[in-house]
Amino acid sequence: MSITREHACAMDANDPLATLREQFVLPEGVIYLDGNSLGALPRATASRVQSVMADEWGQQLIASWNTAGWIDLPRSVGDRIARLLGVGAGEVVVADSTSVNLFKVLSAALRIAQHDSRRRVIVSERSNFPTDLYIAQSLAQQFDCELRLLDADTLAQGIDSEVAVVMLTHVNYRTGAMHDMGALSRKAHAVGALTVWDLAHSAGAVPLALKEDAADFAIGCGYKYLNGGPGAPAFVWVDPQWVDQFQQPLSGWMGHAAPFAFDPQYAPASGTSRYLCGTPAVIAMAALECGVESVLAAETYGGMAAIRAKSLALTELFAECVSKFAKGYGLRLVSPHEANRRGSQISLTCEEGAYAIVQALIARGVIGDFRAGDGVAMPDILRFGFAPLYTRFVDAWDAATHLHEVLQSGNWREARFAARHAVT
Amino acid sequence: MSITREHACAMDANDPLATLREQFVLPEGVIYLDGNSLGALPRATASRVQSVMADEWGQQLIASWNTAGWIDLPRSVGDRIARLLGVGAGEVVVADSTSVNLFKVLSAALRIAQHDSRRRVIVSERSNFPTDLYIAQSLAQQFDCELRLLDADTLAQGIDSEVAVVMLTHVNYRTGAMHDMGALSRKAHAVGALTVWDLAHSAGAVPLALKEDAADFAIGCGYKYLNGGPGAPAFVWVDPQWVDQFQQPLSGWMGHAAPFAFDPQYAPASGTSRYLCGTPAVIAMAALECGVESVLAAETYGGMAAIRAKSLALTELFAECVSKFAKGYGLRLVSPHEANRRGSQISLTCEEGAYAIVQALIARGVIGDFRAGDGVAMPDILRFGFAPLYTRFVDAWDAATHLHEVLQSGNWREARFAARHAVT
Repeated sequence: MSITREHACAMDANDPLATLREQFVLPEGVIYLDGNSLGALPRATASRVQSVMADEWGQQLIASWNTAGWIDLPRSVGDRIARLLGVGAGEVVVADSTSVNLFKVLSAALRIAQHDSRRRVIVSERSNFPTDLYIAQSLAQQFDCELRLLDADTLAQGIDSEVAVVMLTHVNYRTGAMHDMGALSRKAHAVGALTVWDLAHSAGAVPLALKEDAADFAIGCGYKYLNGGPGAPAFVWVDPQWVDQFQQPLSGWMGHAAPFAFDPQYAPASGTSRYLCGTPAVIAMAALECGVESVLAAETYGGMAAIRAKSLALTELFAECVSKFAKGYGLRLVSPHEANRRGSQISLTCEEGAYAIVQALIARGVIGDFRAGDGVAMPDILRFGFAPLYTRFVDAWDAATHLHEVLQSGNWREARFAARHAVT
Repeated sequence: MSITREHACAMDANDPLATLREQFVLPEGVIYLDGNSLGALPRATASRVQSVMADEWGQQLIASWNTAGWIDLPRSVGDRIARLLGVGAGEVVVADSTSVNLFKVLSAALRIAQHDSRRRVIVSERSNFPTDLYIAQSLAQQFDCELRLLDADTLAQGIDSEVAVVMLTHVNYRTGAMHDMGALSRKAHAVGALTVWDLAHSAGAVPLALKEDAADFAIGCGYKYLNGGPGAPAFVWVDPQWVDQFQQPLSGWMGHAAPFAFDPQYAPASGTSRYLCGTPAVIAMAALECGVESVLAAETYGGMAAIRAKSLALTELFAECVSKFAKGYGLRLVSPHEANRRGSQISLTCEEGAYAIVQALIARGVIGDFRAGDGVAMPDILRFGFAPLYTRFVDAWDAATHLHEVLQSGNWREARFAARHAVT
């Protein structure tokens, strides 16, 4: 039995999170399935940023570092994000980019891991997001380590007593496959290794419980499911047990115990402020705060559990609609079939034309992403992100229908589309 | 002969840059002499940022990485800044914070310097801005170096054949004293060392000619004289001769030769993009672009030379007004007397109460800064920045008069002021 559009509409009518969509500006005639690349604009952001500029910067000028709480933004926005990670207030700070934060925590983790042993291996996943691998390559050189890249299904075996740090992205950016954070972290701990988790495609999309899942360090992105805006600042969480041993390589003044004492000798702050480096990016952090608030607004309706339930229902609906015509066009699901093993996206492969098909969909107003394969193990993929705060069931149904029509028409074969960048 | 207020007003009437003040939002009743801490808000910024949010992010979403040029912002804003540094287009990029960028260039410089010699010394100034010293401390540890801190007047002697890198801030944040970049850089080159210049208090305030002055690496701040907004992104310049040898420790994907190929192996971009790390902070970079444009607007009226001429006239006027009553209250000029040796600020010491005096001035709407001394060699200071784009001669005169009145009244002795942070 096929799912009907009416059925999808009925699911929207029963969706406890449905009203949260009103928080966002969404362009007319567009089905936006790229919130895992760039989250949508919350309506509240424009007026908040305007006020930061016109009132706080324009009128109060330098005084706003105190009177408007600018100096506390890394911690105050961090406290809000902490609620999405299942960790305590005062454990998360917002700062810099995901890549820069990964450098900080991986460096600190390696230093702790090598303190009393000669561990020389960083384990990661072969198909991890490249920036994570690049940062690990730089630090592997500095710390005289080998970067051991494994496929997802052999990760657990590859975590042995040589390993200093297991560095993984929780939800894979290509496939949407989600690691079992608790199992892998405990495996790492069992052999004496530390864990670093990249939550780029998890924060705001799936429930997290970092402490229970035995994570040691985590970083994540502000501009995907947190709706913080293009290039939004990123965040850092560190298990409180490691704070005092966290040696900050990017020892900028905002991580100093007393930044305004202008002491010539670096002395790290005692708490999470230690993970900061330079002056907080105030305007960007204000925008991120609005984005995080747009996710926290779900707390009234069941919070992350409700977001996860809707996310799974959305991806399930889309996958099921696609499955009806997939075989005839060589389409194949790359994301895990088991709902509890995937994040909030559906990735598909096809035998040919993945790029052109994505472009044909975009021309119809269905915004997904193309991710190139490596020509060997990893195929080209069509990637569809489902942000439960603003994606409706009828959007998932319509998107699948558009995909079917594109494939039926065969138009994409003739079309020529300009190359296009896309930010993960 | 004392300078009269009428004389100051006449100077404003003859100021070729006077109309540029109209570019800025400035609060009523405030004399803002803290533009070297946080530049004022350009009127253009609010509408530009609004458009980036509402149109580019809100309506075009992910497509704006290409259609709105987001992906090129680090280079396009960098090209504008290059015009203020006396270097070529394509040589500057905008990214991250000043502290993070210093980490990148000092790391790269040390690697080059140590490539074929065992140089083990980083030279800097004892009273350099702390974040620079902190970053140098971290890298000194990593590269097994000694951080040799010298006073300004012994710097040249301290640059010997053991030195790998001379890392200096061009204009001192406390005193406003400006180093002779050309002389010190040539001295460094003569002994085989490289130079790293922090332009935080120079860019947009004094004319720069990095190539002629034999700089090798430079970084600088977007939120002071460039008016980019609180915590604005910072910039990086590298002498083109070092680009190919620049090893980026923060090897994030935006510095990759082909970021969107998602290659698992890091391969640095061939040009200035190599200095990038994570995803560009779009909203903040758009605000910075407006700030830089507010400085480039002076090009019609004589550019950086005209800005410098006005800056010197402003600081000269203020210093001269203060000199009339300074002695009676134990006030002393800390900034260099010789105009060509100071940046765009005047710093004063007094025997007691510097903090309270600054607070009393703030209570009168004269916004300067207090910078604590170290109780030994460095005294507490009162710091007054003169941003020539929006500071008038009458402001300098009025500020000096307010300072006189505060000292005459002695009120500051009784006043109690809440502690206050301030971001350099």
